[in-house]
Amino acid sequence: MNVKLGILGFGGMGKWHEENARRVDQVEIIASCDIKEEKRKESEARGVKSYEFVDDFLANPDINTVLLTVPNYLHKEMAIKAAKAGKNIICEKPAALNVKELDEMTQAAKDNNVIFTVHQNRRWDKDFQIVKKVYEENLIGKIFTIESKLHTANGRIHEWHLYKKYGGGMMYDWGVHLIDQTLFMMGDAHLVSVFADIKSIINDEVDDYFKILMKFDNGITVHLELGTYILSYQPRWLVAGNRGTLKINSFACDGEIWRTSELLDKLPAQIAETVAGPTRQFAPQPAGVLYSEALPEVKTEWTDFYKNFVQVINGKEELKIKIPEVRKVLSVMEAAFESSETNKAIMF
Amino acid sequence: MNVKLGILGFGGMGKWHEENARRVDQVEIIASCDIKEEKRKESEARGVKSYEFVDDFLANPDINTVLLTVPNYLHKEMAIKAAKAGKNIICEKPAALNVKELDEMTQAAKDNNVIFTVHQNRRWDKDFQIVKKVYEENLIGKIFTIESKLHTANGRIHEWHLYKKYGGGMMYDWGVHLIDQTLFMMGDAHLVSVFADIKSIINDEVDDYFKILMKFDNGITVHLELGTYILSYQPRWLVAGNRGTLKINSFACDGEIWRTSELLDKLPAQIAETVAGPTRQFAPQPAGVLYSEALPEVKTEWTDFYKNFVQVINGKEELKIKIPEVRKVLSVMEAAFESSETNKAIMF
Repeated sequence: MNVKLGILGFGGMGKWHEENARRVDQVEIIASCDIKEEKRKESEARGVKSYEFVDDFLANPDINTVLLTVPNYLHKEMAIKAAKAGKNIICEKPAALNVKELDEMTQAAKDNNVIFTVHQNRRWDKDFQIVKKVYEENLIGKIFTIESKLHTANGRIHEWHLYKKYGGGMMYDWGVHLIDQTLFMMGDAHLVSVFADIKSIINDEVDDYFKILMKFDNGITVHLELGTYILSYQPRWLVAGNRGTLKINSFACDGEIWRTSELLDKLPAQIAETVAGPTRQFAPQPAGVLYSEALPEVKTEWTDFYKNFVQVINGKEELKIKIPEVRKVLSVMEAAFESSETNKAIMF
Repeated sequence: MNVKLGILGFGGMGKWHEENARRVDQVEIIASCDIKEEKRKESEARGVKSYEFVDDFLANPDINTVLLTVPNYLHKEMAIKAAKAGKNIICEKPAALNVKELDEMTQAAKDNNVIFTVHQNRRWDKDFQIVKKVYEENLIGKIFTIESKLHTANGRIHEWHLYKKYGGGMMYDWGVHLIDQTLFMMGDAHLVSVFADIKSIINDEVDDYFKILMKFDNGITVHLELGTYILSYQPRWLVAGNRGTLKINSFACDGEIWRTSELLDKLPAQIAETVAGPTRQFAPQPAGVLYSEALPEVKTEWTDFYKNFVQVINGKEELKIKIPEVRKVLSVMEAAFESSETNKAIMF
């Protein structure tokens, strides 16, 4: 059976799926739906029939899977509609605004015996896959800290993401990815506690800065940070273990692994003079002590998301993005909002 | 009246004070005391009489001020001895291992009517003074995050700092400075909560990695991080406000202030393609949007510490390093240890 996709919401992400999902064997784009005439015209210009009303769209028997690319606040209502119409559901992230909404969507999918998954595409990002490989293959020894950061000077957030009522803000837009990557990589490790600092700096309504600390029982603390107005961008990833430090500067995956060449206890003591006094501990290293290695190679192909979905609807594979995983991400987001509000750590 | 200094403990810091304090008018070095013969010989070779036994040392009537440069675990006992001998006390940091010890020392100083202060010399560090100026003069608008970091590849800690029983570890060695700088800079702002992650990575007994988040009621969250084995050093300071970002790379004060040249809402939307999908928010900036400015000039002179002390013993100034400030630093350190142990945030 082919995946016969109906795209509900033909904005930026709707168009992106239209262009890219069709590259995958056994995925067909059947139709789209958008309340805006301009978007429908764009769809028709690309050869994709477009509906104004969702009920007409869902009545199209050729569609067996609905892709939800409407603004976040509409995910729940539209997912339930799609489920009732007997369509499988691929939902853009965040799946819902909170766990309660997700549970209603999950129930509707179950009641109507349709497949339900979420497009957590950033699991296929190359920078993330490198970090995951380094973690899983112990390439820098026992890891104690992972920093995952996104900084930009694009202070203002765009379109409906500017508004709370539509499910805007950077926690919903990118926090969901950073948390999902973290939980996915940490696998069976138990999440112990979450502490967060979430702010609105440049934008009026919605969060455009956050820091989230996630402590795991495997000894790793993950630090997520996003700022839409931090003008000196820090590395996308900084991961430190007891045998080396991994740095990846950006999505372009420029970076390296740093190591020490000499036995630690044989390093000569040096002293650095500062205005206010000397420091031995933070003196510069003798030449040659620090050296770097290339990052490991990884292969990653985003289309695996759709390839998996094709297999799933044909009963040959399990979903790669499972709803219990999505649910845990949303529960961490809820905990982060609560932590930031109360200044307390939320225990898991 | 001159400060007539007796240096109790002639290790690294004792020698450093001997060399540097004498540069200040009205400071004389009278004698030293060390249980190790080798250290006493070093002292005598520099022309400074040296005692083996602390009681003999304290009996020297020429000494009016004792500088405590013994290992941390001896501060309390020696401070009380010095106070009882009627000597003023300058204690190296950390003043004590906890608030309770400090309170006993403070009481002894009060009972014996001697002056008691702590050598929190890092308040005079140039990098810190630049950040403090930027904060106080609003040079990057309203600040929302301050990161103060110290990374090194000098994994192993030196001498007695390696052992718990002597008060070793990086929290006592440098945590005390980073917290003191933070509280000093934040002034009257209320500290709301402390969340910390403290670990032993390369060393067996003592902490050699910590991260401490301090949330203040002025909207600023301060992130302190120290790692003795983070091989890709991140900037000493990263401070972001709603009108710019300050970066200082190292103690050498290389760095700059970053700003945006165009009105934020007029930045053109761009899209960056990554393996797993597009991002508008984290696309690169058009050329010329970001520009940098030189860091502001500051003047700082560490000898102000001793100059102030000379004035204090002559009744002309208040202490620059006040015991209630030192006490608050220790209470934050206690909270940090407790937070790391319990995984909870400690409320203030």
